[in-house]
Amino acid sequence: MNTRKTKINIPKSELPRVVIVGGGFAGLKMARKISRKHYQVVLIDRYNFHQFQPLFYQVAMAGLEPSSIVFPFRKLFHGEENIYIRVTEVTEVDLAAKELETPLGCCDYDHLIVATGADTNFFGNEQIAKKSLPMKSVSEALYLRNTILDDYENAVSTPDYEERQELVDIVIVGGGPTGVELAGALAEMRIHVLPKDYPEMNVKDEMDIYLIQAGDILLAGMSEKSGRKAEKYLTDLGVKVLLNTRVTDYDGQVVTMADGSTIPTSKVIWAAGVTGQLFKGLPQVAVVKGNRLKTNSFHQVEGVEGLYAIGDIAFLPEAKFPEGHPQVAQTAIQMGNNLGKNFNRMAKGQTPKPFSYNDKGSMATIGRAKAVVDLPKFHFSGFFAWIAWLVVHLFAILGAKNKFFVLVNWMSNYINYNQSLRVIIKPKKEG
Amino acid sequence: MNTRKTKINIPKSELPRVVIVGGGFAGLKMARKISRKHYQVVLIDRYNFHQFQPLFYQVAMAGLEPSSIVFPFRKLFHGEENIYIRVTEVTEVDLAAKELETPLGCCDYDHLIVATGADTNFFGNEQIAKKSLPMKSVSEALYLRNTILDDYENAVSTPDYEERQELVDIVIVGGGPTGVELAGALAEMRIHVLPKDYPEMNVKDEMDIYLIQAGDILLAGMSEKSGRKAEKYLTDLGVKVLLNTRVTDYDGQVVTMADGSTIPTSKVIWAAGVTGQLFKGLPQVAVVKGNRLKTNSFHQVEGVEGLYAIGDIAFLPEAKFPEGHPQVAQTAIQMGNNLGKNFNRMAKGQTPKPFSYNDKGSMATIGRAKAVVDLPKFHFSGFFAWIAWLVVHLFAILGAKNKFFVLVNWMSNYINYNQSLRVIIKPKKEG
Repeated sequence: MNTRKTKINIPKSELPRVVIVGGGFAGLKMARKISRKHYQVVLIDRYNFHQFQPLFYQVAMAGLEPSSIVFPFRKLFHGEENIYIRVTEVTEVDLAAKELETPLGCCDYDHLIVATGADTNFFGNEQIAKKSLPMKSVSEALYLRNTILDDYENAVSTPDYEERQELVDIVIVGGGPTGVELAGALAEMRIHVLPKDYPEMNVKDEMDIYLIQAGDILLAGMSEKSGRKAEKYLTDLGVKVLLNTRVTDYDGQVVTMADGSTIPTSKVIWAAGVTGQLFKGLPQVAVVKGNRLKTNSFHQVEGVEGLYAIGDIAFLPEAKFPEGHPQVAQTAIQMGNNLGKNFNRMAKGQTPKPFSYNDKGSMATIGRAKAVVDLPKFHFSGFFAWIAWLVVHLFAILGAKNKFFVLVNWMSNYINYNQSLRVIIKPKKEG
Repeated sequence: MNTRKTKINIPKSELPRVVIVGGGFAGLKMARKISRKHYQVVLIDRYNFHQFQPLFYQVAMAGLEPSSIVFPFRKLFHGEENIYIRVTEVTEVDLAAKELETPLGCCDYDHLIVATGADTNFFGNEQIAKKSLPMKSVSEALYLRNTILDDYENAVSTPDYEERQELVDIVIVGGGPTGVELAGALAEMRIHVLPKDYPEMNVKDEMDIYLIQAGDILLAGMSEKSGRKAEKYLTDLGVKVLLNTRVTDYDGQVVTMADGSTIPTSKVIWAAGVTGQLFKGLPQVAVVKGNRLKTNSFHQVEGVEGLYAIGDIAFLPEAKFPEGHPQVAQTAIQMGNNLGKNFNRMAKGQTPKPFSYNDKGSMATIGRAKAVVDLPKFHFSGFFAWIAWLVVHLFAILGAKNKFFVLVNWMSNYINYNQSLRVIIKPKKEG
């Protein structure tokens, strides 16, 4: 069957067409804010659902089901008119013709919003890219979960000590929120869950969890207090935190550090950096460090008519943020909100407003009942920080039933010291 | 890394070793019943979880998450001794040496329980096997869900009417409980969910659901009343039920019937029969129709010392069941129970009891708030049959949290006319 067509199947409209590429925090916020009385809106994403990235690590650790932290786009826009969802990938843009290429056909636009986000950055090391495990989508988080469980199942029938070590030891590269939260959750699993699942093995002695950070502090984007506290929490949980350590290679069996030292392991989780997900045809002159697209404070890529960038892929230098804003959900949501409202202002003949980032603080959780929170003028940590973390994330998840299922899972995990979702499921046609 | 070893890593024991192959209804019941003070028990399954097969169709229809209807074996046996779970597949048995081959190494046994169940039967048609969609595992159910959703996403951007028909029409082959329940759920989705998800398409007019049955009645294993009632329910829901119709071929685009008529469709769900999952080395002389292993009423394969078969793969002719028992959960559970108890009886020097099937009746649900129930002396249908169906299945699901999540999903689906799990998730490592 030929699915490659001249034109993607979207009705003609007299309204200007706004095409948003990417339904993450930025793109989805924009799609919900923009008035569909004044614009025909097309939302393109490679998945048919929005993903709640801050909880990927709990999917990987078998604490939550993927469906609890994703939400189908079509359900989100039930009963709403003039929005067209297309599940596909943009392969190229022709800026002069104002036209996108996708496997479903080409799609013209009046305004193009690039909200494709950022993907794992392997800094050009192809061997690491091939052999290590990233975690930038719910699919990758599930893959990671399956790999950890598969390796444990293999380890339990491996009599050789050294071989078993390779299967159970885990190296996490990158001491940002993702690396820290993963390390904490793994450490809790090592203490509370795995010894019950694998009574035949001496999990606590055999399993080592390494967290490797190139810089001299964890959570570099947060306060020094938070970084040091996170380090203490993790060390107390038995995680081997290696600061000032740079990973130079990984061949699938051995991690090599810059100083020549090595760790043998079959699993490296790579959370050491991100890079913008550009597609072909975007203006090279606007691409800056980290593959971000430079915009003015109205989110416009200057010099190209009708081209905008928001979220992780946008680089918008403000006086307070000369290196661009932190690539986090808050930035993306605020950018999507501002650009959506600006389109509505323009439709009414009003002038658009420049973006100004409202720093609401940042937080990270480390295992069971521990977290660190930086508010603009205040830092706290421990149990209440963890409660704050739970509440903020619970409110941010889309959908009442999702919120409810996540809450029940969290309560059940907290009471039972036990995640119940340790099942290796791979959708496939068998036999 | 070489995972193929001479011996699978299980401690030596002075107790006789009972190896159960397959953790479905029969194998799991047996593993839970047999006394591990008298036997060392090894449970081998290709998955690390037990699957609740009667609800696969709800996973396929995005009504339930797979994790709600599966349960990890290791969690089930937390804190229990002398049970060894190995996630692998048996490739061959050497009956003379009493030894199994698996990719994890070989495993000797004193008693071997074959509880491998049945898989989809394509009756030797390789083209149908290759092109149609089976649904005999939770992985296959998820794959089916993803395929249906993918095809709808493609259909929405396909302007050509004929091409779109192929993508949205669905043919189900086989009018047993699986086919009937799937057809009912799909019909409800066509009425209540898809028009809201795809307002751009005229779902009700465009989407045809065919249920094709070779015999002259649906639910052939149940009463005639139930079969006729199910047919009426499905027809009322808009399903095209074709009786006395035999599918002879499917090439991925067109279904061909014995009378030469055809239906164009990209999706055929094959639920037309099952065949026992034998492995190499089992005694050919004991293999009967449907690839089942013939046993005596003590579940022994006669003429082979220490070999037993229970569940869907067992053929145990009783006076009332000259063709063998129905291949359903009830039979499997009762066989596992009896054989487990017989082993305990033998350990205490008592005589084992012959198997006698206790027919508790059968039931099938057809869409929203409708079902048919056959009790041994009584038939009923409609809303109360549906409530009975819900209660029976809810109680049978393993795990309190699973029961709770299934119940909440069912209530939510019933109130909102809407399944919320329409997300296409494939665990994978992405580029």
